Amino acid sequence: MAFPMPPHQTAYDRAATIFSPEGDLYQVRYAFEAVKKGWTSLGIKTKDGVVIAAEKRFIGPLVDIDDIDKIYKIDDHIGVAFAGMGGDGRILIDYARMFTVRHRLLYGEPPPVELVAKVVADVKQAYTQHGGVRPFGVALIFAGVNPDGTTKVYRTDPGGQYFSFKAIAIGSGEQVANEMFEKHYRSDMSLEEAIKLTLKILYAIIRKTVEDTEKAIASLPEQVELAYITVKDRMFIKMTKEQVKEVVDSIRDELMQL
Amino acid sequence: MAFPMPPHQTAYDRAATIFSPEGDLYQVRYAFEAVKKGWTSLGIKTKDGVVIAAEKRFIGPLVDIDDIDKIYKIDDHIGVAFAGMGGDGRILIDYARMFTVRHRLLYGEPPPVELVAKVVADVKQAYTQHGGVRPFGVALIFAGVNPDGTTKVYRTDPGGQYFSFKAIAIGSGEQVANEMFEKHYRSDMSLEEAIKLTLKILYAIIRKTVEDTEKAIASLPEQVELAYITVKDRMFIKMTKEQVKEVVDSIRDELMQL
Amino acid sequence: MAFPMPPHQTAYDRAATIFSPEGDLYQVRYAFEAVKKGWTSLGIKTKDGVVIAAEKRFIGPLVDIDDIDKIYKIDDHIGVAFAGMGGDGRILIDYARMFTVRHRLLYGEPPPVELVAKVVADVKQAYTQHGGVRPFGVALIFAGVNPDGTTKVYRTDPGGQYFSFKAIAIGSGEQVANEMFEKHYRSDMSLEEAIKLTLKILYAIIRKTVEDTEKAIASLPEQVELAYITVKDRMFIKMTKEQVKEVVDSIRDELMQL
Amino acid sequence: MAFPMPPHQTAYDRAATIFSPEGDLYQVRYAFEAVKKGWTSLGIKTKDGVVIAAEKRFIGPLVDIDDIDKIYKIDDHIGVAFAGMGGDGRILIDYARMFTVRHRLLYGEPPPVELVAKVVADVKQAYTQHGGVRPFGVALIFAGVNPDGTTKVYRTDPGGQYFSFKAIAIGSGEQVANEMFEKHYRSDMSLEEAIKLTLKILYAIIRKTVEDTEKAIASLPEQVELAYITVKDRMFIKMTKEQVKEVVDSIRDELMQL
Amino acid sequence: MAFPMPPHQTAYDRAATIFSPEGDLYQVRYAFEAVKKGWTSLGIKTKDGVVIAAEKRFIGPLVDIDDIDKIYKIDDHIGVAFAGMGGDGRILIDYARMFTVRHRLLYGEPPPVELVAKVVADVKQAYTQHGGVRPFGVALIFAGVNPDGTTKVYRTDPGGQYFSFKAIAIGSGEQVANEMFEKHYRSDMSLEEAIKLTLKILYAIIRKTVEDTEKAIASLPEQVELAYITVKDRMFIKMTKEQVKEVVDSIRDELMQL
Amino acid sequence: MAFPMPPHQTAYDRAATIFSPEGDLYQVRYAFEAVKKGWTSLGIKTKDGVVIAAEKRFIGPLVDIDDIDKIYKIDDHIGVAFAGMGGDGRILIDYARMFTVRHRLLYGEPPPVELVAKVVADVKQAYTQHGGVRPFGVALIFAGVNPDGTTKVYRTDPGGQYFSFKAIAIGSGEQVANEMFEKHYRSDMSLEEAIKLTLKILYAIIRKTVEDTEKAIASLPEQVELAYITVKDRMFIKMTKEQVKEVVDSIRDELMQL
Amino acid sequence: MAFPMPPHQTAYDRAATIFSPEGDLYQVRYAFEAVKKGWTSLGIKTKDGVVIAAEKRFIGPLVDIDDIDKIYKIDDHIGVAFAGMGGDGRILIDYARMFTVRHRLLYGEPPPVELVAKVVADVKQAYTQHGGVRPFGVALIFAGVNPDGTTKVYRTDPGGQYFSFKAIAIGSGEQVANEMFEKHYRSDMSLEEAIKLTLKILYAIIRKTVEDTEKAIASLPEQVELAYITVKDRMFIKMTKEQVKEVVDSIRDELMQL
Repeated sequence: MAFPMPPHQTAYDRAATIFSPEGDLYQVRYAFEAVKKGWTSLGIKTKDGVVIAAEKRFIGPLVDIDDIDKIYKIDDHIGVAFAGMGGDGRILIDYARMFTVRHRLLYGEPPPVELVAKVVADVKQAYTQHGGVRPFGVALIFAGVNPDGTTKVYRTDPGGQYFSFKAIAIGSGEQVANEMFEKHYRSDMSLEEAIKLTLKILYAIIRKTVEDTEKAIASLPEQVELAYITVKDRMFIKMTKEQVKEVVDSIRDELMQL
Repeated sequence: MAFPMPPHQTAYDRAATIFSPEGDLYQVRYAFEAVKKGWTSLGIKTKDGVVIAAEKRFIGPLVDIDDIDKIYKIDDHIGVAFAGMGGDGRILIDYARMFTVRHRLLYGEPPPVELVAKVVADVKQAYTQHGGVRPFGVALIFAGVNPDGTTKVYRTDPGGQYFSFKAIAIGSGEQVANEMFEKHYRSDMSLEEAIKLTLKILYAIIRKTVEDTEKAIASLPEQVELAYITVKDRMFIKMTKEQVKEVVDSIRDELMQL
Repeated sequence: MAFPMPPHQTAYDRAATIFSPEGDLYQVRYAFEAVKKGWTSLGIKTKDGVVIAAEKRFIGPLVDIDDIDKIYKIDDHIGVAFAGMGGDGRILIDYARMFTVRHRLLYGEPPPVELVAKVVADVKQAYTQHGGVRPFGVALIFAGVNPDGTTKVYRTDPGGQYFSFKAIAIGSGEQVANEMFEKHYRSDMSLEEAIKLTLKILYAIIRKTVEDTEKAIASLPEQVELAYITVKDRMFIKMTKEQVKEVVDSIRDELMQL
Repeated sequence: MAFPMPPHQTAYDRAATIFSPEGDLYQVRYAFEAVKKGWTSLGIKTKDGVVIAAEKRFIGPLVDIDDIDKIYKIDDHIGVAFAGMGGDGRILIDYARMFTVRHRLLYGEPPPVELVAKVVADVKQAYTQHGGVRPFGVALIFAGVNPDGTTKVYRTDPGGQYFSFKAIAIGSGEQVANEMFEKHYRSDMSLEEAIKLTLKILYAIIRKTVEDTEKAIASLPEQVELAYITVKDRMFIKMTKEQVKEVVDSIRDELMQL
Repeated sequence: MAFPMPPHQTAYDRAATIFSPEGDLYQVRYAFEAVKKGWTSLGIKTKDGVVIAAEKRFIGPLVDIDDIDKIYKIDDHIGVAFAGMGGDGRILIDYARMFTVRHRLLYGEPPPVELVAKVVADVKQAYTQHGGVRPFGVALIFAGVNPDGTTKVYRTDPGGQYFSFKAIAIGSGEQVANEMFEKHYRSDMSLEEAIKLTLKILYAIIRKTVEDTEKAIASLPEQVELAYITVKDRMFIKMTKEQVKEVVDSIRDELMQL
Repeated sequence: MAFPMPPHQTAYDRAATIFSPEGDLYQVRYAFEAVKKGWTSLGIKTKDGVVIAAEKRFIGPLVDIDDIDKIYKIDDHIGVAFAGMGGDGRILIDYARMFTVRHRLLYGEPPPVELVAKVVADVKQAYTQHGGVRPFGVALIFAGVNPDGTTKVYRTDPGGQYFSFKAIAIGSGEQVANEMFEKHYRSDMSLEEAIKLTLKILYAIIRKTVEDTEKAIASLPEQVELAYITVKDRMFIKMTKEQVKEVVDSIRDELMQL
Repeated sequence: MAFPMPPHQTAYDRAATIFSPEGDLYQVRYAFEAVKKGWTSLGIKTKDGVVIAAEKRFIGPLVDIDDIDKIYKIDDHIGVAFAGMGGDGRILIDYARMFTVRHRLLYGEPPPVELVAKVVADVKQAYTQHGGVRPFGVALIFAGVNPDGTTKVYRTDPGGQYFSFKAIAIGSGEQVANEMFEKHYRSDMSLEEAIKLTLKILYAIIRKTVEDTEKAIASLPEQVELAYITVKDRMFIKMTKEQVKEVVDSIRDELMQL
């Protein structure tokens, strides 16, 4: 538990429909804790496109890690990653996809990235205000290219808010990742540079649990899921392990020095 | 917690549907606390038009502050700003927009500003009287020009009340702002003077967290969102950073002396 | 809290749907406390017509007190004032208006005053008997002229009861006001005398918070909202500040002596 | 609280849907306490007709006691009086009237008195068995003349039972009244005698709070509401103050000796 | 309270939807206590027909005991008596009558006695398994003649069970009555003998509260309600006071010796 | 209570919708206790057919034990017996019958035995997972002959599970009965042998409360209800008392030695 | 209880709709405990096909173990096994079958294995987020061959998540089984080898409760249920006892050495 809470206040934290005397919703805060325990996910925007990536933790040799997705395509021009409770995330991603299909049918054009983030955040808000339910224990990063060619990255929170970011990470490695973003992110970086930064960040997180530098580097193609959408093509492209490996090899020296 | 509450009364504060022995709804009070933690927003009316403005706090270099809105257009002739829980505010602003569209369709004319404030306040009231929900943790300032040319500023509270104001601020800087309003507001001030007063007030609030005077002044175009509606044009106009900067430059000396 | 309540009984006061062993509904009592904290409102009936009036408290220089209503027209022949929670009062006044419109449409004639008071009281009763809601924290005074020319004043209570009065005040000044009514009300007083009595009463209440006699008198046109309906015209007429001032001037000596 | 209740049993008295270990519904008992605090009402049947009467307590000079009803006509041949919570009584009386109108429409004849008492008691029973509501805090006396010419008096209780009576009183004066009924009621008394007995009983109750004998007698026409229905005419007739006074004058000596 | 209940188990007895660790529903048990406090009712079957009877307790001189029913006709061939909460009993008897009418309409023949007992028991079962309601605090005895000429007596319990009996009593006198049944009931007794046994039993119960033997015997025609249905006629016949008196006179000597 | 439960865990046993930390549903366990208090019922399958039987306990001379059923026909080819709360059992047996009729109408053929057990178990499962209800306090044994000629015996539990058995007993005598089944059941026994085993088992249970061997044997035809369905005829046949007596007489010596 | 839980946190574990301060849903954890008490089930994928198997524990000689299924066919190309509460598993398997049928009807082709696992996981997720219900106390293993010829094994958890596995076991023997999988599973093993590994694993689990090696081996055909689906035939094939015995005999030496 990351925040101090005097024992006499605990009575306010049993439902999202009860404000504490300070005007807080404790259940929403607790849902954030579920996010902070999730696998690290991140999104970056550049002028050329956006990158979405996620760590896939090694959870035993029996798990078929190749068959587990942490980043999803919402539409050709939008991708999503999440951190927190998997079932909750899946439900909201399905909802976002349904919305996108309906939007295309109704208006004959793809929805802007913010609208998708907003409708998901609206569902989350409702689950913080009405009784008999709990907030969604998940944060999502929607990244994409708008019909007007601008690139966007949004994070939706368990409380129903969403913010626009240049680059953002969520999940258990979010502190490490965001510090690296603050240090290395530049608005004018190319998509390729953004992909390299992404891999450096996820390497830094993975290395924390893998002692051996070589091993950590070698595991990157297996343990990283990475997709990008270029402003030019507006197609959600998931990189193959081989493609990831190629980039990793090209920045091997930099990784060694981290 | 701003008010004293003897421990034996805490049992009355778990639901908005329970009166305390003094006839209070504590959950509504607690929702007000959420408002008081929000970013400062304000509205002013003059004979020539209304001004709506809000502080956009610097919350780290990764946030794309240009892509975050704190003031919204409801209709050509009405704008809104809010302080408190973002998700709650968004829901109510959507509701106000839907109402306005329906009103135009049904009656062939835009609704008066008060009517929009009233329907939003009605929704808020319902959330204080029926079980299984919590009050909205947000206050909104609706400002606009009525079909008859009068200018109006309304604040709706979490408890479902709304009041008419000449000028009003909400959120964490509301005390500073409202004291400056009381001192400097004049019914006969021009819209331009109202815009300048707005910038002075938001500067005073921002300077509290930015030691350096120069820096605080320089950050104004980035950290202030400001729109106006003139009686003549009845169009919600959001000022560009350049336009804000121009006004800031014109009152630079006055800001230095604050 | 005006009544003594032994601590062991508090368990009965959490819902309007629980009787105390003495057959009381504590939540309804607590709702009455909300009324007692409201701004003073009053109604008087005379043979010539009825008067409805309310105090508008000075709540700071930024509030546009001219744009705040404390008394409302329900129909040409009925007015209403309230004390207590503003949002609750607004909802019930809307309901009364809707009922009146429907009544005219269905029966081709305006409803008697009592019927309007009764349907509002019926809504209030329902909110004291069904779970998941709280009682309305508001009392209303309906005053008007019946189709048969009789004048009527009704007060509806949070518990769902209503009574007929010759003259009655509610809100924080109700004790002062009702004592003055008991002393000065006469069944045969003219409407003009009733208006003067109203102003004397509201002056007595306002003077309690304004030390200076002159200032208190001067503030009356600003701080008093007053309407009347004559038996002859059956039109709800709200007096202008100038009209109020004229009457105040005519009774200035009497006010000085209060 | 009229009955002893050991503290460890209080947990059974929070809802009408919980039986105590002794098979009691405490909330229904508590609702009876609300009845016992009500203004005294009574009903008598004679061969010639029925009498319904109620005490109207003096509650201050501002109340327009003439405009307050305590006894109501349900149909030409049925009247009702109640004791307890006014709002609850009003709702049930409205329901009884609606039922009577529907019965006449459906069957082309007025309903028997018992049927009206029964449908009201059925509503009351439902409010003692289903959660989320409270029992009705009111007892009603239905008195009338059946289509077959028999006279009937029924009392419906908060628990949903009803009984047939020769004469019965409810409310705060019920003990005094019922003792006088037991002493003075005769099956063969005339309607006129029943009216006189009614006035004697209500006088006895009123005199308890009015020291002066003369004053108490003088107040009777003001403080007593009395109606009768004769077998011959089957019309609910409310007596005027003058008519009440005439009867009071005729029994003045007897009243003096009470 | 007839059964011992250790204090630590009380937590299981607040709702019929909670089993105690022993597999009991305490709320159903408590509802039985309501039955045990009711006026004694009974039913007997003989080859010639069935008898239904009930004690009508003297509850003061004002009650019109002649106008109070404790046994009811469901259909020509079925009667019912009940013990427990009057309102609950009335609701279920209405339900049984509705069912019988519908059955006749749908199938063109009267329902067997068991089917009527079963549908009432089904309603009772539902009120022990679903939340937000309480069990019915009433037991009913259905007695009648089946279309095939067999005679039947069923008792339905608060828990939703029903059993077939040769003779059975419920209510406060059930122990006395059932002991007498066990001693004196014979399968081959005539309907007349059953009626006499019924009167002896109710006399034994009434005598417990009436010291004087003569008085108790004299009160029987007033305080006993008795009906029978013969196999031959299949008509529910309620005996008049005179008819009851005649039987009482014929067994006077036997009564004296009880 | 058959299982030890530390006091600090009791908080998990108030609703079937709460898991204990060990993954148990205590309310379901408690419902099993209701089953264990029921009258013993049993079912056996042989190659030739199935036997369903139940003990009918002597519960006083007034009960018409001949008119009480403990085993029921669901369809020609399926019978059922139950132990536990009678009302609950009746509801589920009605449900099974309705399902069977609908199945025949829809598919033109009788449902297999397992399908009937399954739909009843599905209803029971639902009552363990949804709030506001309690589990069914009853176990049922469905025994029958499938359309393909195989014989089946299923037991459905309060928790919603069902199992297939060769022979099984439920209720208060289940331990005695199942031990005898384990000792004497043979897959190749004839239906006649199964009937004899059934009678021996129920005799063993009845003898526990009847001291005298002769009396216990003599009471068997009265206190045992027994039906069988042969593979050949597929008709639910309930044995008459005479038929039971005949079998009892044929195994009298064996019974004497038990 | 497998995890430590300080006593002061227990208050968060009464409903799946309450987050603990650490962001956990305790009720979901407790539901996992129900899974861990279930009979062991497992699934393996190979290039040639998938194997699904389950232990059928000996629960007494009266249970007809041949008539109890632990693995089920969902469609020709998908099978399922489960561990945990039987009723809950059955409901979800029915749901999966319904979904599969609907999918074939709507799209004219069988659904991929993951889609079936996903819709079941979606139902489970809903039962962790909405009040008035409890999570499903069951885990399921879906194994099958996709339309594209790939083989898949998914495990759905009580919390609504699902993962892809190469081989996985659930239930009380899951630790033993998964350790053996980690040691012996190879991606390139043949279906026959997978079947043999399955039998070795279930033997290892059964032997824990059966002392005698010979007996444990002999019981395998009775106590193991095993099905496979080949990529070639895409038909769910359940092995007969004889077929299982044949394989057991072929690996008898290896079993002896375990």
